[in-house]
Amino acid sequence: MFKKAFQDYYPEQFAQCYGCGRLNEHGLQIKSYWDGNESVCIFQPKPYHTAIPGYVYGGLIASLIDCHSTGTAAAAMYRHEGREMDTEPHLRFLTASLKVDYLRPTPIDAALEVRATVKEIKGRKAVISSTLSAYGDICARGEVIAVQVPSHLVK
Amino acid sequence: MFKKAFQDYYPEQFAQCYGCGRLNEHGLQIKSYWDGNESVCIFQPKPYHTAIPGYVYGGLIASLIDCHSTGTAAAAMYRHEGREMDTEPHLRFLTASLKVDYLRPTPIDAALEVRATVKEIKGRKAVISSTLSAYGDICARGEVIAVQVPSHLVK
Repeated sequence: MFKKAFQDYYPEQFAQCYGCGRLNEHGLQIKSYWDGNESVCIFQPKPYHTAIPGYVYGGLIASLIDCHSTGTAAAAMYRHEGREMDTEPHLRFLTASLKVDYLRPTPIDAALEVRATVKEIKGRKAVISSTLSAYGDICARGEVIAVQVPSHLVK
Repeated sequence: MFKKAFQDYYPEQFAQCYGCGRLNEHGLQIKSYWDGNESVCIFQPKPYHTAIPGYVYGGLIASLIDCHSTGTAAAAMYRHEGREMDTEPHLRFLTASLKVDYLRPTPIDAALEVRATVKEIKGRKAVISSTLSAYGDICARGEVIAVQVPSHLVK
């Protein structure tokens, strides 16, 4: 599959994020795609992303939900505006609020699947709900309130 | 200061966490201490822990709040039981729920200070509230519901 991910459209100054920036060589470099009205991101944890042995640490789960949700917010806003992600002005979202419920321990050897839906999109704000699954079981649920990056924050 | 941190008391199988395990050489290795009835953790982000340039990515903030809060939950439970952290049985908490409100962008060059208080502690559960500050300004607020690791999860 050679489809571009949401994050592949981020202009350079927005592509440095540790979680989702394709230009951050130390980072997670997550990739998010549409799958109908849901967005999906698959991520394989490294063995050192551990909590207690055998399970993924909560901060990684929070990071995946966070960055996949802000990416989904941007992609959804392009859709909402009826334009492609390679058109200007570029859209990038930051997290105003993040909530993660950890339902069960997440096995570290699984490819994790984060699926998100847009619950609300209005003005400069989007509310994104998500699940994180391993081997088909939902291990965590997320909710992110994302807001468009204000122009004064872009250096 | 040669005082031992909460995380320095974790037995080996609990000291692997990417966020707070002293034995995870890839991880953040955060250190938490009592400061009266509050607990405190100071963490200096790396330049690559960026979101948009100049600011810390939300996943790191979530990770610091998460691990500092579970560490605080354990330390608080020892206090609650009237015993030292080097006594058995060892206590270790996992996160059931994490909420982070990002109040303002967090500058990446600052030493971040996470301060936590125990809101509730009962049975195997603790509720921990926290703030994350940079240069004296509160940049994020956290709330974590932490539960004691069930014995069947310890390998």
